[in-house]
Amino acid sequence: MDMDLDRCGDTISLSPSKIICMLRNYRAHASELNNPVPDRINFFLKPPSSLLREGGSIIKPTEVVRLHHEVELAVVMADRCRDLTPETAIGHVLGYMLMLDLTARDIQDDARSKGLPWTQAKGYDTFAPYLSRIVGPDEFDWRDRRIYLLVNSMVRQEGNTSDMVFPVEDIICYVSRIMTLERGDIIMTGTPSGVGPLNAGDEVRAGIEGIGEALFNVIDQM
Amino acid sequence: MDMDLDRCGDTISLSPSKIICMLRNYRAHASELNNPVPDRINFFLKPPSSLLREGGSIIKPTEVVRLHHEVELAVVMADRCRDLTPETAIGHVLGYMLMLDLTARDIQDDARSKGLPWTQAKGYDTFAPYLSRIVGPDEFDWRDRRIYLLVNSMVRQEGNTSDMVFPVEDIICYVSRIMTLERGDIIMTGTPSGVGPLNAGDEVRAGIEGIGEALFNVIDQM
Repeated sequence: MDMDLDRCGDTISLSPSKIICMLRNYRAHASELNNPVPDRINFFLKPPSSLLREGGSIIKPTEVVRLHHEVELAVVMADRCRDLTPETAIGHVLGYMLMLDLTARDIQDDARSKGLPWTQAKGYDTFAPYLSRIVGPDEFDWRDRRIYLLVNSMVRQEGNTSDMVFPVEDIICYVSRIMTLERGDIIMTGTPSGVGPLNAGDEVRAGIEGIGEALFNVIDQM
Repeated sequence: MDMDLDRCGDTISLSPSKIICMLRNYRAHASELNNPVPDRINFFLKPPSSLLREGGSIIKPTEVVRLHHEVELAVVMADRCRDLTPETAIGHVLGYMLMLDLTARDIQDDARSKGLPWTQAKGYDTFAPYLSRIVGPDEFDWRDRRIYLLVNSMVRQEGNTSDMVFPVEDIICYVSRIMTLERGDIIMTGTPSGVGPLNAGDEVRAGIEGIGEALFNVIDQM
């Protein structure tokens, strides 16, 4: 899946080879789903086929009962790299984006109870909506940024990136010691509290201070 | 990660956007890990960065105690498609390959017990070794093929593709109703029984009747 991003008026074309998502990286979100605050970094993959550009329609699959929104700060990698350190990590970042990690919570809960993978719950088409604006690390510090999401103009998620359990540098470093990162690869850094349901007809507005706002609508699968 | 495959002397260059792996798709393998034979298809993702061409070295990461081999028949998709039926699925297959699904079993067991994702256990670099020969669906029927793996010339895995719980057509169809498949995407169809440990110095030989044999060695992470 190709992704055209806008950086200060220039178009950057990327083909992410993986989308890596942190779990429970904001204390208040871990608590709201009755999970412990993690003592180590953990992550899962979403397929590139789940990407959806802003303005598009989030499709709620027929078999999904509880579709949940999670707004996240995403990091896009600049080049092929591995074995980074917290000191070298940001030097390999192309920029920051706003993304949503949509989740079939009922399918995820069932998988968790059985010790099964989360892939289906996280991997449907349109489950990775994004704002196509990318902001370089020279012009954007990921710390202390307001991050929020509204559904039908009602505030659902409202947090600050400084509440992350693991900082962005440590996340990139950890992942790069397990898997080689490629240009265009995306790392999503977790969601603040307030996750909740989406249904057909809902209008979703999500934003990160210093990046921008994206708008999506929700429709039922045909 | 680019992958050059050989089909009858021609080179086909692909960049898989996802590697989708079935779990517990051979009855005897489900039993050997004390899991029920599944009543529905389930799968996880490996990152393209885990691909390793035949003849290469499988790297056992420092923190992994039990590195396990799983030999699998893999399907490579020919084009972008979704919502396939068992009748149309094979028409979108470019060919069949031999792959291994290497697994950090200790990390996977820990994740399963906590209801966490399997990504790290399945996603290290070199954890998706492959034979670069691809055989088209016109010259290869996936049914009733011997599939086997030897470590240091001792037979570890020995099965037959006809023992799959879910047939290849149903697997492709199921996945395509969740995520759009792209040219070069890989679907791994599960492993027969006999999975077991790999350690530095081991020589792995794996084969599928009608495709061929691949050789890998195992080394410790530096």
